[in-house]
Amino acid sequence: MTTATDREALVHRLHRIEGQVRGIERMVEQDAYCIDVLTQVAAASRALQSVALLLLDDHLRHCLTEAARAGPDMDAEVTEASQAIARLVRS
Amino acid sequence: MTTATDREALVHRLHRIEGQVRGIERMVEQDAYCIDVLTQVAAASRALQSVALLLLDDHLRHCLTEAARAGPDMDAEVTEASQAIARLVRS
Amino acid sequence: MTTATDREALVHRLHRIEGQVRGIERMVEQDAYCIDVLTQVAAASRALQSVALLLLDDHLRHCLTEAARAGPDMDAEVTEASQAIARLVRS
Amino acid sequence: MTTATDREALVHRLHRIEGQVRGIERMVEQDAYCIDVLTQVAAASRALQSVALLLLDDHLRHCLTEAARAGPDMDAEVTEASQAIARLVRS
Repeated sequence: MTTATDREALVHRLHRIEGQVRGIERMVEQDAYCIDVLTQVAAASRALQSVALLLLDDHLRHCLTEAARAGPDMDAEVTEASQAIARLVRS
Repeated sequence: MTTATDREALVHRLHRIEGQVRGIERMVEQDAYCIDVLTQVAAASRALQSVALLLLDDHLRHCLTEAARAGPDMDAEVTEASQAIARLVRS
Repeated sequence: MTTATDREALVHRLHRIEGQVRGIERMVEQDAYCIDVLTQVAAASRALQSVALLLLDDHLRHCLTEAARAGPDMDAEVTEASQAIARLVRS
Repeated sequence: MTTATDREALVHRLHRIEGQVRGIERMVEQDAYCIDVLTQVAAASRALQSVALLLLDDHLRHCLTEAARAGPDMDAEVTEASQAIARLVRS
């Protein structure tokens, strides 16, 4: 992760998602209508996905490009990034 | 949602996801390695997806089948369920 | 599947997707730029997903509601539909 | 895309997906059971996703690392790759 500002923004987003999940717990406890609960779950999923895409962009922008410049063999780093992308696409 | 037991189990799962998201916040604050953070984000996403699939199963099993038995016209209910599924598939 | 018209529209959509996939084959054979190929793969995926959502809506609208009206026990039908939704959400 | 062998393997996979989609068309024409059609659509989606992940891995391994070595400013290349990943994750 590059700057403290970026990290702070990311923590802020995650904190909001934590609140969304807590809100969904309340909805289930109060027996809210299934479809309304599902709408909130889909919103939290999308928010979590956006965080993942930010993290991945940051990883490519910093970690991976540093590795590319550092030496000739960056196969291990690319494999690691590709596996992370695959987990994300399949999640 | 049918029984209080089902609701409780769902709240428990959501509570665990809330804890996972809080853990990811800590990781970002402590500048953990991007790929490790991403692995945890993918795990939280999958857990949220499982909750959504449980909610949807419950909706089909109870709300939708009640509607089917209640009267001849359940187009509105099916459309609502289909839109919820689409939001989920696309999230 | 209800009407012959619905079936025909669905076959038409699938035929277009078949053409999209064939187009992607040509792009790869001609060594097109990876990002352009990926854009077309994402478009074909989305088109396939829309077909799946149409099939699912149709299933809920006809097969599942028929089952609900036919008898008291439709647990097997709901389980089957839920599993199909899960495969879709996770694919 | 690196080698002719890699390209050939990818074309072969895409050709199989094209056949899968054609098979789904036949199923719909013959009014096969919705759930069986859906199972085949999910399988074709997953196969298409695997092709996308291979293309992305190849892009990171070759195009992006070449860019990293070529010069100091690769922001445009990373942004392009990130956008392709986002389209994939959201498709």
